[in-house]
Parts: sequence; structure tokens; C-alpha cells
Amino acid sequence: MTRFGEDWSRGFRDLILEAGVRALEDCGLSGSEIEALYCGTMASGALVGQEHAGALIADFMGLTPIPSTRLEAACASGGVALRQAYVTVASGVHDIVVVGGVEKMTDVPTAEASYALGGAGDQEWELFMGATFPGLYALMARRHMLDYGTTQEQMAAVAVKNHANAAKNKYAQFQNEITIETVMKSKSVASPLKVFDCSPITDGAAVVVLAPLEKAKKICEQPIEIVASEQASDSIALHDRESLTKIKATEIAAKKAFERAKLAPKDIHVAEVHDCFTIAEIMAIEDLGFVKKGMGGKATEDGLTRIGGQVAINTSGGLKGCGHPVGATGVKQAVEITWQLRGKAEGRQVKGAEIGLAHNVGGSGATAVVSIFRKVW
Amino acid sequence: MTRFGEDWSRGFRDLILEAGVRALEDCGLSGSEIEALYCGTMASGALVGQEHAGALIADFMGLTPIPSTRLEAACASGGVALRQAYVTVASGVHDIVVVGGVEKMTDVPTAEASYALGGAGDQEWELFMGATFPGLYALMARRHMLDYGTTQEQMAAVAVKNHANAAKNKYAQFQNEITIETVMKSKSVASPLKVFDCSPITDGAAVVVLAPLEKAKKICEQPIEIVASEQASDSIALHDRESLTKIKATEIAAKKAFERAKLAPKDIHVAEVHDCFTIAEIMAIEDLGFVKKGMGGKATEDGLTRIGGQVAINTSGGLKGCGHPVGATGVKQAVEITWQLRGKAEGRQVKGAEIGLAHNVGGSGATAVVSIFRKVW
Repeated sequence: MTRFGEDWSRGFRDLILEAGVRALEDCGLSGSEIEALYCGTMASGALVGQEHAGALIADFMGLTPIPSTRLEAACASGGVALRQAYVTVASGVHDIVVVGGVEKMTDVPTAEASYALGGAGDQEWELFMGATFPGLYALMARRHMLDYGTTQEQMAAVAVKNHANAAKNKYAQFQNEITIETVMKSKSVASPLKVFDCSPITDGAAVVVLAPLEKAKKICEQPIEIVASEQASDSIALHDRESLTKIKATEIAAKKAFERAKLAPKDIHVAEVHDCFTIAEIMAIEDLGFVKKGMGGKATEDGLTRIGGQVAINTSGGLKGCGHPVGATGVKQAVEITWQLRGKAEGRQVKGAEIGLAHNVGGSGATAVVSIFRKVW
Repeated sequence: MTRFGEDWSRGFRDLILEAGVRALEDCGLSGSEIEALYCGTMASGALVGQEHAGALIADFMGLTPIPSTRLEAACASGGVALRQAYVTVASGVHDIVVVGGVEKMTDVPTAEASYALGGAGDQEWELFMGATFPGLYALMARRHMLDYGTTQEQMAAVAVKNHANAAKNKYAQFQNEITIETVMKSKSVASPLKVFDCSPITDGAAVVVLAPLEKAKKICEQPIEIVASEQASDSIALHDRESLTKIKATEIAAKKAFERAKLAPKDIHVAEVHDCFTIAEIMAIEDLGFVKKGMGGKATEDGLTRIGGQVAINTSGGLKGCGHPVGATGVKQAVEITWQLRGKAEGRQVKGAEIGLAHNVGGSGATAVVSIFRKVW
């Protein structure tokens, strides 16, 4: 992956190229061995005027004439690209497949980016009416506070933990630790969410390489198996949801993924979950089954999701600390889990991590992808 | 599919819903039997402010919580969605899969749509420098005229044939026949291309349903087998291409598709090819191997590509006559081929059609998808 952040010196294509070269170097493959390419990007049309990103990337990575396809599911674009590549390897149509995710978000004014990102929700019923994404997640936060007594300090604890992790990750956008007070005193964005409850606008790219397991074992010394990758959908507008305090698509995708992997939440040592807002991480750890519904805030406050706790959540720093180049996030999660299972996560390493999970959400929860990874050497 | 055209009364979601309901009615399946959804749309973000179209469509078709994914490859978005759904069925991960394509293009001014469509080429090297899509194809047309003596009248013959076919298709945007003179006297867009050399701006949607062959035979009386679906990429900017007079990605995808299908161009009875401009159809029939390189113009003028000719090209009316809602086009091609192989193409039926081909191009040729279909009952 690239170092995430505000990158004024490089464009969309430079970012994915850098991540791509690093991924190929890591596995020691040459471009001529790659059979297909999938790329997640959410809003390259609105953010850099570039659609048709699949072909662009194949071109700039020197991989033409292989099939190269862009996938999009808002902030879950990287996750669906990863899953579709996994399905493709399973089909036998292609063996060695590169999956990238990329977003260049800082080339347009923030208001323009906000409008583009609003397209992740229901344009007619939400965006057109003035609902921004912080606004939508603020509704979820308010309801979670009302139903379960979740506090703003508990949400702040998510940001504090994730900044602490990011501070140990040289690829993270933010490298500074913060305190509960930093969050509580920061400017309100959409009450009860404050600036430090929100993930940032980020430029970045991430790439992984997939192959059938037996082939992967020959290619690299530390292959990671994707034991499951499941995806689910829900109504795109909040007003049609069964509940405002859970992401039903996460529950469904997680249930299927655990079943396919023959594993349970207690088996997971390390997980990257979708914390676009602090309340989103609290809901995620509940919906994924790591803690009981309603207990996500308290669990975070009690340190259960820290490195060394019951389950290490967002060791990369998550979307909050590591940054959130939307299309890249789902692939970056796979990169972090790979580093963790390989014991290469440096100062943020989870000891003995053998099984990891990545959880990527699109929009306010209309898409969720849950993938489970296992060390196999 | 929906009737293609300028549709002022309905929105993006209404179009795909109508096509989706028709497809499910056609095969007699209920929504609960659908396991996954793929949707091609090129620029819903720029054209209707809506990204995350996969989830939106699952929602409005009442198909949540199934996985639903948007794919994009410019004007080949429908083609890549079809191919990815085919790969997914082949993987065994999902059996019954719905593939849609949709674009609502008339909700923004034409200049805005043109800019969005320009994102199908290289934003930095082409669009930003002022090259529009008619401009890019005009370069190809000029070179084809220079190298092979292709004439403007031969290009006009493509439009005349495709309008004649469209006039027999109740789903087509244009239902009027035209003459060579109509084309030759129409306003210049980017010389030598005139208004009637260009496909129109169109609203529309198309949907097909895929299943493993044995299952499809149980579900419907007239199943069509996809015997091959291949995709290739090329440099996104024209200036990096090997040649301006062919689409290399078409050549490569076609070669692979014919190999996999164990068929040759002469075996094809009916083909939908990507005629975004008249010159594009001339190059397509050459690159697909239906006629020798350089002979596409003459073959068209001589009537070899008419219904009843050597191979019937664009019986639907093609992009020129039937219309070109970009994300829908690749799926519409599959719909037309299905109708042809089922003998249900009414006044434009190709007698005894048993094998068909669909050819979908993204941008100026950086993506091409070629699929071959066979009647199997």
C-alpha cells in the first residue's frame, strides 16, 4: 500500500501504480504472470474526472491486454473487488489475479467530495434532501445512545485507540496519539459526532495478489488463505431499515462467512472493521459478534478491543487513524491482516495472530463484505 | 429491456426495475430464487448523483440481502457485468444470477454528460486537453479512410442499415429509416463524423438471468448457452496504441472467445457489435474477423452485414439506431441475441439463427468484451 494521507504531489494513477509495484515485488511475480485485474474505486469520475479505471490501471501498470475491471460499492468498493477476485480464482477462469483499491480525494474542494460521497446513500431520499454522511451516522449514534446508553466518551475511546494504533503504523495518515479530551473538545460535525469521531479525506491505494492456494504456497513463503468472503445488501436509505442501531448487511455477511469458515467470532485474533465514524466501529464489533449488542461502547472503553485485549480491532489505525481513501479501504484491510498474520506488523503486532477478519461497509450499510483470513504455513 | 429513448417521466431506478421485472417474468423465477446481482452502469455518479448502484438496485428490486455489485468499464460496463456474472456462475459460488445494465443520461445538460463520458478515455492526456469522444473516433475514421480508402458514404451505410433494423424493433430509440443523403447532409460533429454517424444519448436498462446450463434447461424452454465470454484491455489513450485503425482489445478478446467456443467467425449467424460511431462498426466487423481488414466499409456498402446478408450485424439497430444508454448496452446486446436465437425477433428475425455474438467496447477501445451464445434446445 501507499502511505495514506493528503498527497499533493501525485495523481490517481501514480498511487495505484506504487501500490501495485510493491505488491508484485512482495510476492516476486512479474507482470507477465498476472491473468486478471480487479480494482475498487468509488468516485474517480467525480473526484478526478476518470471513469474506466480498470483499463487505466492495466495500462499504467503495464498489464494490458489482460481483463481489468473496476468494481464499485461506495466505501466497500475495495471489499467487493477483493471478493470478486476471490470468486474468479475459485471459478478457475483465472489463477493469478491482482486486486487493487484506490481513491484520490483531495483534488477537488471538500464540498464537492462530500456531494460525491453522498452518492453512497440514497440520492433521491437522502442526499437531495441535504443528508450528509456524518448526518446519517449521527442518527445511528443518537439511537444507539438512546437504546443502549452508549456515551460520547465511549465513542471517543474508539478514536483514541485507533490513533494509538495508527501512531505505530508508518503507512497511516495520522501518526499522533490523542486523548478522550481531544475528541470531546473538537468541533461538532453532526451532533453527537465531532471532527475526531469522523474518518478523514484521504489519498491512497492498496493492492493484494490472489492465487489458488496450492499455487500461492509455491509462490511465496507466507501465504494467507482467504477461508471465506461473503457480501450482503440492505436498503440503501436509512428510513427503510429494520433498525438504526445495527448494520444488518454486516450481520448477514458475517454469519455466512463464519459458517463457511467453520469458525466463530471468538476464534478471531485480529480484525479490521469499518470505522468510518466511531459509532460505526461500535456497531461493527456488535454486529460481527465480538461483543453483545449494545455493549460495543463499554467494551471499547474497557480496552477489550485494544492490541492485547480480547480481540485487536483496527490495528492499522482503522479508517479513523490510518485514513479512508474510500475505494482503497477494503483492500488495505486485507493488507493489514496479511501483515498481522505474517508477524510483520512491527510495533502494533498482535502476538500469535493466526486468524484475521476484514469488514468493509458501503455507504450507511447498504453493502457489507466480511472476509476471513488464515495463516497457512 | 425497457424501450430505449429519452425518458423524461422516469428515473434511474425505475428503468432498471422495469427491465428486471420483465426478465424475471420471462424466466418465471421469483425474486427469492436470485442469489446475486451484477449491474453495469458507467456514470451514475455524474449523471444522477448516485454511486453504490448495486445496493440501490437490490433494494428497489426487492432482492436484499443478496450480494449486489456494480461494475464499470465505460461503455463496456454491461459487457463486463455479464462476463463477471458468467464467471461467478462458473465458480459455483452462486447459481442463479441477475445481470443488469442501466444508464439515465438525460437528467443533465448534454455538455455535462459529454464531460462525464469523456472519463471513458484518458482524463489527463485526452479529456483535459479537449478531446471529446467524437473527436477521438474521428481520428480513427480519418486514418481508416487514408489507409484503406474507406469513404464517408460507406460509414453512412452503417447508419442507414442500423436505422432500418431499428425501425423493426419496438424497443429502439429511433424508429425511422434514413438514407445515405440524410447522413451526408447532417451537421458535422467532428469531421468526418456527422450527427448521423454518432450514437445518441439514451435512457434505458436491460437485464438477463444466468444459471448453470443444466439448471437453466429446467427453468426455461428456450435456454441460451454462453459458450464463451472473454475480455481484454489496451492502452486507454489513443496515442499509445499500436494502430488507430483497429481495436486491438477486440481482436484479442475475439480470438480467445472463438478458441474457447471452438468456433470461427464464419459460424456466427447474428452479431451485435459496438457501433458507438459508424466507423466503430466498420472496425468491429474487421477486428472480429467477419471481413478482411480494410474491407468493412465496402462490405457494409455491399449489404453483406444486412439481415439476410453474410452475417446480420446489429439487428437491434445497434447503438446507432436502438440507442446507447452506456451501462445498459452490453446487456441489451445479450437480450437481442437471445431473442434472435429464440426466433422472437419479429420483423428483424434472422432465419435459422443458432449462434450469436455480442461485442461491447469501453471508451475508445481500452476494454473489449466478446461473448458467444448458442441455442441449446
